[in-house]
Amino acid sequence: MRSIKEYIDLFEKNINSFVPAADHEQSDMREMMLYSLDGGGKRVRPVLCMAFCELCGGRAENALRFAAAVEFIHTYSLIHDDLPCMDNDDIRRGKAASHIRFGEANALLAGDALLTHAFDLIARAAEDGQVSASAVVQAVAVLSRCAGMNGMIGGQYIDLATEGIKVPVDSLYLMDLYKTAALIKAASQLGCIAAGADADKIKNAGEFADKLGLAFQIIDDLLDYEDENASDKVNEKATYPELLGVQEARNLADKYTEQAINSLALFGEHAEVISAFADQLLHRTN
Amino acid sequence: MRSIKEYIDLFEKNINSFVPAADHEQSDMREMMLYSLDGGGKRVRPVLCMAFCELCGGRAENALRFAAAVEFIHTYSLIHDDLPCMDNDDIRRGKAASHIRFGEANALLAGDALLTHAFDLIARAAEDGQVSASAVVQAVAVLSRCAGMNGMIGGQYIDLATEGIKVPVDSLYLMDLYKTAALIKAASQLGCIAAGADADKIKNAGEFADKLGLAFQIIDDLLDYEDENASDKVNEKATYPELLGVQEARNLADKYTEQAINSLALFGEHAEVISAFADQLLHRTN
Repeated sequence: MRSIKEYIDLFEKNINSFVPAADHEQSDMREMMLYSLDGGGKRVRPVLCMAFCELCGGRAENALRFAAAVEFIHTYSLIHDDLPCMDNDDIRRGKAASHIRFGEANALLAGDALLTHAFDLIARAAEDGQVSASAVVQAVAVLSRCAGMNGMIGGQYIDLATEGIKVPVDSLYLMDLYKTAALIKAASQLGCIAAGADADKIKNAGEFADKLGLAFQIIDDLLDYEDENASDKVNEKATYPELLGVQEARNLADKYTEQAINSLALFGEHAEVISAFADQLLHRTN
Repeated sequence: MRSIKEYIDLFEKNINSFVPAADHEQSDMREMMLYSLDGGGKRVRPVLCMAFCELCGGRAENALRFAAAVEFIHTYSLIHDDLPCMDNDDIRRGKAASHIRFGEANALLAGDALLTHAFDLIARAAEDGQVSASAVVQAVAVLSRCAGMNGMIGGQYIDLATEGIKVPVDSLYLMDLYKTAALIKAASQLGCIAAGADADKIKNAGEFADKLGLAFQIIDDLLDYEDENASDKVNEKATYPELLGVQEARNLADKYTEQAINSLALFGEHAEVISAFADQLLHRTN
């Protein structure tokens, strides 16, 4: 197993190669896609994808395209989420949001292109012989379901539908499970799938990711809570710190992280790298 | 081979089953997706997908999910295209556009969900044993490339970038090839792939679809040209009738349709159903 930093380096080194050149000479599509992909994210999903692949006996290199596919979907969701009709955020990771930089229509298209290209990358992993055709079927199924109407997009929908409404904690749990945990689950499970892991491992990786995703979203909300200008506050979105208070929310994040780590038992001692990553995400400050 | 009407009936009978129920009881995602899918389109892409499947010796039923996948992508593209930041069309096929009916944010999400679910459907075709895992790899590759930055989305990008600019006929040709022909190509080729056809047939189906797609877009432009309120005119988009005049544009559509039909020689006499369909599309009035 490599270190978290090594996974991130491997991913960053390859990211440019995952976005094709535009056939049409006047197209800036590639530039727009890379602008948002290069946004300095934490690469949580690619790291988990590659780490689970190695944990299941595969090579991280063979999970690179799956890792990129999940990151492409994460990135498109941020672009669309920042649009004026959604959260209307002008700044993303300290730089101009895509629609501020390229205009709304182009940001919409760049997001659509990233989402579409995620599946191109998955198919390419089989075309290049990195994974089997049946692994591609599994990966497409998991990714499209985790990212779709009963996954991430479903979570965004609930998020919008409940703006300004004081929802119960149960609804918040479900929303976070869809909106955030689902794609982290896809990343973890795609790593296992790339390694040809059995159903038990894929299931356990999913349980880990559900809990990690919940903890991750609570920490996000806590960090936002301390930021006066965060759009969640402006848009009156319900969050754990709002509903439970800061201390109780932090306790919940601790609990979910512990549960996540406990669900790694099946993977043996090498799972330490992933446990340490979960812990690092729990104590992050941005 | 069935008739065009039988393909359409088969597709319409199954369309509801392709959109899953929402897991979350308060979600209207399914309703929003079906609203646009039920919009009374011509089902050009599903018909071609099923017809090419039968032409290559497969069963139309086994191409249904592939056919739906392409129609889902076509439908999402219309929803996003109608948004205020794009063509700003309030009416689609005689009823309120998605963003007028459900609001901009929901229309954006419904489009994203349709695009994402297209790939779920493709994976499901293998899970249900209708096609092989390697057919899924091929289908995901073809669909994501035809729909992506060097396909349909690339065409939309050029369309936007050239608004108000008097482009040469060459640029129009490329734009139509990307924007319109690419997805018709995906539909035709996915039909072949569902039947396990060889590379020659897949290639020929693609050549047919390129020409048909070009003719299809010219007829669209001609019909729009006669409609005072069409958004293309309001948005000052270049089209063949604008550049070449009505008669010359119609001659070009005739020529492309003839070329399309000629490229069906490899498929034998049963290709008549598809030739007749091409002819019907050339002479349509809406």
